[in-house]
Amino acid sequence: MSNIRRYDKDDNTSYALGATLSIELLKTRPDCVRRVFLHSKLNSQEVISTIHELIEQASTSIAIETNDKAFRILSQKENCFVIAEFEKFTAPIDGRSPHIVLVNPSNAGNLGTIIRSAVGFGLPDIAMITPAADLFDPKTVRASMGSLFRLRFSHFDNFGEYMSAFPNRPIYPFMLNAASIDLREVAMPETFSLVFGNEATGLPDFFASIGTPVQILHSCDIDSLNLPIALSIGLYAATKDNRFSR
Amino acid sequence: MSNIRRYDKDDNTSYALGATLSIELLKTRPDCVRRVFLHSKLNSQEVISTIHELIEQASTSIAIETNDKAFRILSQKENCFVIAEFEKFTAPIDGRSPHIVLVNPSNAGNLGTIIRSAVGFGLPDIAMITPAADLFDPKTVRASMGSLFRLRFSHFDNFGEYMSAFPNRPIYPFMLNAASIDLREVAMPETFSLVFGNEATGLPDFFASIGTPVQILHSCDIDSLNLPIALSIGLYAATKDNRFSR
Repeated sequence: MSNIRRYDKDDNTSYALGATLSIELLKTRPDCVRRVFLHSKLNSQEVISTIHELIEQASTSIAIETNDKAFRILSQKENCFVIAEFEKFTAPIDGRSPHIVLVNPSNAGNLGTIIRSAVGFGLPDIAMITPAADLFDPKTVRASMGSLFRLRFSHFDNFGEYMSAFPNRPIYPFMLNAASIDLREVAMPETFSLVFGNEATGLPDFFASIGTPVQILHSCDIDSLNLPIALSIGLYAATKDNRFSR
Repeated sequence: MSNIRRYDKDDNTSYALGATLSIELLKTRPDCVRRVFLHSKLNSQEVISTIHELIEQASTSIAIETNDKAFRILSQKENCFVIAEFEKFTAPIDGRSPHIVLVNPSNAGNLGTIIRSAVGFGLPDIAMITPAADLFDPKTVRASMGSLFRLRFSHFDNFGEYMSAFPNRPIYPFMLNAASIDLREVAMPETFSLVFGNEATGLPDFFASIGTPVQILHSCDIDSLNLPIALSIGLYAATKDNRFSR
C-alpha cells in the first residue's frame, strides 16, 4: 500500500470525500479512480454493494481497502465513511459550446458551487484565468457535489490568451459599474462567453471595453452579489430558451 | 471591562468581525453597538477616523478599546483588525411586503448569502421556520456582508403558524419534483411568499399542495441547485419588473 497524505495542489491525485461523491466519481470517471477507502464504521450495505458493483464494472483495476487511518488524515468531517482517491484528469473546453470564463477566482468552495450551477444549466465549459483557485481541491470537489467530474476546463495565463484561442465569440463581461447593460435586456446568441471577475475585486476596468458588459441590477443596500450567485443568475438568463428535461 | 468570550447562540450579543462589517453595523444600527475592539496592528488611519466619527455620531455610548486578546478569542482570521460587539435586535417582518420563508435552513454561511441576496433584490423580509440556523452567528453576519443589519425577520415553530399569522398570501413553494410549474412561466403578484426547504432535504412533500409549487429546471446531471443559488434565482425572477437604481 502506498502512502496516504493530506491533499496538496501539486499532487497528481485528489480525493472525493464521502459516499455520495465517491459513487458519483465511480459512475462518471471510473478510469480515474485509484483506490477506495472504506471506514470500519460504514454500515450501509447498499453503499457497500453499490461501490463493489461499480468497481467490478470498471475497466481498470481499483483497489478497495478498509482503512480508518486514511479518514483521520484526509477528512475533517465526522460523517465521512467513504473516500475515493482519483487521478487528476484533463478535459479541454469545447470551442463550439458557450463558455464561462473565470478571471482569478480565489475560493475553492465558491468554485465548486459555480461548477454545480454550470453543469446544472448545461454549460459545463469553464475557462480559468490564472492565478485561480484549485479545481481539484477536495473542497472544490465537495462543493461541486461531484459535478466537477462532468466539467470541461482549460487554464490561461491571461484573458488575451483565451481570446486568441477562441476568437470571434460574443463576450459578456459581468461588471459592477453603471456603464453596462441590464442583464434583463440582453439577448444572447447560441455561442457566447460569460466572464466573471474575482470575489473581492470583480473584473478589471478594461473589460468595460470588451464585448457587451452586463450588469445584474440590485439595490444600493449591498455592494455586490456573491460571485456564485451572480454567475448562476447569468446562467439562468443565458439559458432561458433551453428546455431541460423534467 | 466585562469579559469577552467566544460567541454562543444563547448570548444576547454577537460580533461583527472585520472593519467593513463593523463600519456597516455602526452606520445601520449604531444603537445596537456596545463595544468596538481595535487590534494594535490596525494601521489604516481612514478606518480609525471613520470608526471614531461614527461612534461620536451615535446617540448611545459606545466603548472603544485596543484589545488584542479579543481578537485571539473571537476571530480565526489573520486579517481581522476591528471587531464590533452588538446586542441582538428584533425587526419583525412586514405583512405588506413580499416574504421569503426558509423552512429549517441549517447552514450559517448559506443563511448569510441568502440575506445578502434578499436585501440586494429589495426583499428584506425573511420568515424562519425553526429549527433553523442562527441569524446572529458571526458566520452568518460575515457571509451577509453586513446586510443582516437591514433584515426584517420572524421565527415560527411550523409553517402553519406562519400561514395563520399571514393568511391569504400567494405562496410559491420551490420544489424539486416534477409536479411543479417552471419558474419561467410564473407571473407573481405584488405581495407573495417564496418558500424554500432545507439544504439537504428540500421541502416536505405536503408543500406540493400549498399555493403554486415552482421548480427551477436544470439538467439531470445534478440533483439540485445549491440553496442560496436557487433562492437568488427565485428573487431575480420575482423582481423582474423592479427597477433598481443604478
